[in-house]
Amino acid sequence: MFAIALDIGGTKIAAAAVWPDGSVRHRAQVATPEGSGDTVWTAAAGVIGAVLHDVDIAECAGVGVATAGPIDLVAGTVSPVNIPGWRGFPIVDHLRATVPGCDVRIAGDAVCMAVGEHWRGAGQGCDDMVGIVVSTGVGGGLIIGGRPLVGPSGNAGHLGHISVDLDGPPCACGGVGCVEAIASGRSIAAWAVLNGFGGEQTAIAVAEAARAGDTVAIAAFDRAGRAIGSMLAGTATVLDVHVAVIGGGVADAGELLLAPIRRSIERYAGLAYARSFELRRAALGADAGLVGAAALVLAAP
Amino acid sequence: MFAIALDIGGTKIAAAAVWPDGSVRHRAQVATPEGSGDTVWTAAAGVIGAVLHDVDIAECAGVGVATAGPIDLVAGTVSPVNIPGWRGFPIVDHLRATVPGCDVRIAGDAVCMAVGEHWRGAGQGCDDMVGIVVSTGVGGGLIIGGRPLVGPSGNAGHLGHISVDLDGPPCACGGVGCVEAIASGRSIAAWAVLNGFGGEQTAIAVAEAARAGDTVAIAAFDRAGRAIGSMLAGTATVLDVHVAVIGGGVADAGELLLAPIRRSIERYAGLAYARSFELRRAALGADAGLVGAAALVLAAP
Repeated sequence: MFAIALDIGGTKIAAAAVWPDGSVRHRAQVATPEGSGDTVWTAAAGVIGAVLHDVDIAECAGVGVATAGPIDLVAGTVSPVNIPGWRGFPIVDHLRATVPGCDVRIAGDAVCMAVGEHWRGAGQGCDDMVGIVVSTGVGGGLIIGGRPLVGPSGNAGHLGHISVDLDGPPCACGGVGCVEAIASGRSIAAWAVLNGFGGEQTAIAVAEAARAGDTVAIAAFDRAGRAIGSMLAGTATVLDVHVAVIGGGVADAGELLLAPIRRSIERYAGLAYARSFELRRAALGADAGLVGAAALVLAAP
Repeated sequence: MFAIALDIGGTKIAAAAVWPDGSVRHRAQVATPEGSGDTVWTAAAGVIGAVLHDVDIAECAGVGVATAGPIDLVAGTVSPVNIPGWRGFPIVDHLRATVPGCDVRIAGDAVCMAVGEHWRGAGQGCDDMVGIVVSTGVGGGLIIGGRPLVGPSGNAGHLGHISVDLDGPPCACGGVGCVEAIASGRSIAAWAVLNGFGGEQTAIAVAEAARAGDTVAIAAFDRAGRAIGSMLAGTATVLDVHVAVIGGGVADAGELLLAPIRRSIERYAGLAYARSFELRRAALGADAGLVGAAALVLAAP
């Protein structure tokens, strides 16, 4: 048995067959096209078709989808912010028609990262954990009692849109002081440049300068780590979780980001049970979406 | 069938028999004694004995306990901050010996408030909700998917110890910027006096002055509501919950506190699914602990 996994993002749409040991095979990928909902669906159907061509559908346990959000689990629709052609797009119905007889499950991409890392990555054995993805934005997903906690609408786990600073910067979501408005790659770079950083306005350039000793660049990562750490301290306190798996391009900066996160957890987590917190690097890399999407099917209790 | 409910606080220990309709009968109560663990236990056993005297133990479905925290569900022990004689006190074992043959369940007092309000109070019908108690401190409890989410140690739901302000005031818990450090009755009164409020340093006096138009007193409640609202916005975002039931003595200030909470949720909740949030006044009053403790037994799936 295997699962068909579909990973839908604003940049690319990927599909693969994923086996219970977490191995990803028969991968197919296409750049996410601009245009109407049908155009995007044709691209998605194309990569699924390529995978189906290589496998025996009789052995398919179901279809799992990792998608940029927001989603609506009740309606079975997705409205990825970066895919304007899909607003309330009925992806579950479309997939049921394309892969007949197969169960279809969908979740947000960061939820799938958490589910995948719990199943076959750095979170194995942790029945209560959070996954966070620090890249252009800041995403998150929750595993509680061994299962994803997605809420009635499927959108639970948006750790990047917790406000940690009453007088913090405005966030693209409409809120104020969100972790994402302080700690995303985009926010780190913008803050650094605003504070005199002379290099390219990217988190990668800021990270390189920080490693070379640039004080503004170091301060930009310290500030980001402080926001993420405060959020993780609150999450540990409220959910009694003790492990976070962190991935995403900005987290590749390593200790530059992880050290201030740890210091911040120390500072903002006061209650004894919340203070034993372990930060782990994600293990699945770019496959996290596909593996997590498959886990929705293969790891379901 | 009924449940024996025990409500343990720093001020009083109460017990009662609670029926499936939520009615509380055969109530017994004693002031929490100072002294050793045995002294406190003797007081607790006394009120339980008084209840047992009045009921037919054969009809008892179990014993539920609402207790000041922290607790340790795995060990079955409690260490209420305000009861120094109980540190790691094995209450579950003691109750099993006192009420033989009965199942014993324990939870934090604010968790019990949430469970009770969900079962027979203002949260009926809401399978995803939070309960918050704003009094001397700020407590909280989570109902997720119709069940209390208490975490592995039993301490999940401590909404008062989420930090909402990176540069906020220090909290008694050891953290910084916690909701409790801004919005508890004690914090409201202290902030008001620090900012020139001339009345008695109690939240009740500040509320009375605010109703009479005192600008510092009004600002103290606005500030508290802002912190609570930011925390609720974050909770709505991460847990996909849309109802909060608010109780406790400070919440009795009504719109003085609730109006700034609502404004703050508007400000800090950016994502569409998190913005439809309903704040409800608690319905069970001082019985919330007993009813919630009973619900641990009678409402368990």
